[in-house]
Amino acid sequence: MYAHVFSWQRALAEAGMAIDGWKIHRRIGMSGGLFTRAVARELGRELSQAEADALQRRHGELFQEILPERRALPGARELLRALGDAGVKYGIATSGRRPEIDRSLDCLGIGGETVVVERRDVQRAKPAPDLFLYCQQRLGVSPDDCYVVGDAVWDLLAARRAKMLCIGLLSGGYGEDELTRAGAFRVYRDPQELHVSLDELGVLP
Amino acid sequence: MYAHVFSWQRALAEAGMAIDGWKIHRRIGMSGGLFTRAVARELGRELSQAEADALQRRHGELFQEILPERRALPGARELLRALGDAGVKYGIATSGRRPEIDRSLDCLGIGGETVVVERRDVQRAKPAPDLFLYCQQRLGVSPDDCYVVGDAVWDLLAARRAKMLCIGLLSGGYGEDELTRAGAFRVYRDPQELHVSLDELGVLP
Repeated sequence: MYAHVFSWQRALAEAGMAIDGWKIHRRIGMSGGLFTRAVARELGRELSQAEADALQRRHGELFQEILPERRALPGARELLRALGDAGVKYGIATSGRRPEIDRSLDCLGIGGETVVVERRDVQRAKPAPDLFLYCQQRLGVSPDDCYVVGDAVWDLLAARRAKMLCIGLLSGGYGEDELTRAGAFRVYRDPQELHVSLDELGVLP
Repeated sequence: MYAHVFSWQRALAEAGMAIDGWKIHRRIGMSGGLFTRAVARELGRELSQAEADALQRRHGELFQEILPERRALPGARELLRALGDAGVKYGIATSGRRPEIDRSLDCLGIGGETVVVERRDVQRAKPAPDLFLYCQQRLGVSPDDCYVVGDAVWDLLAARRAKMLCIGLLSGGYGEDELTRAGAFRVYRDPQELHVSLDELGVLP
């Protein structure tokens, strides 16, 4: 999250579009189209497609440069392993794209057997529900049986539109109140706390 | 804020102390001693003074490297000018140190005539009230007549201990609820919105 915010802030500043960090932070994870429109609103003028593409490219370069390695959130790998061992189906639904997301998936120990839905697989990104609905279809389960786990307000809003309960994590740097107000069913610090709370959620007995 | 979070995150990771960004974010602006103790708590072991000093130094290097230029928050310069024109006394009370803060002060148009209280001037940093109390003494006004303007929870807590009302700004990336719960008298987006709200606060007629 913080590397994304900082890369966007730098990419925008280099292009002469100075925008405060907190405004970028609160918009990470929303679709690129919405993000660009939000930037345009801040600047008070439209962005051309070429400008938007150049920003996206430069953000990607800076992100790779400043964050060469990836690190899983505390407990993330263990959580996925426990779900797998218990026969609980899970998938990854991300607004990121391959190959940018490959290293994050590697770092989580996610191989070809796991359902991964990425930005290109659906028409509309968050806060539209498409990523979550397509992931649920591929998992072959009902929306009623799904929990979405997310750490940005856009995840929560998209989950509600998909009629799924959503678990908020504090890792996105939003406050607990913001996540709760956006509709979080429960809020945990990180995947580790979620892991030990799976019984609260009825996921593990 | 975001450059600080990211510089700490990198400095800690380089030293083999991987800590999540949001945990660092929520601790920016507190005293270095408290920060180090919070890091130690996350890691589950004490940090030596040498380790703490090395981290602080590396953070400073990375910060300079990734954020070569400074930029004032929207409306900050205009706000200070308006206060000056209206004869309202103001000062800067920061947990930063010279020379690191020099460029930020330049960028705000702050010269030698303005009271600047920095970390070295007081014994204890935020959330202790010392920075604000010493600034108020140097301004020659009563605590009852002061507003503290801050964008982190530590500013608000320190202001309450100093018995001053505190205005929260969203620029620190905390949510409005977090600032309000920490005791903010009012919360504004940025100095620009604070500027047009000075009449609400009784600062300008």
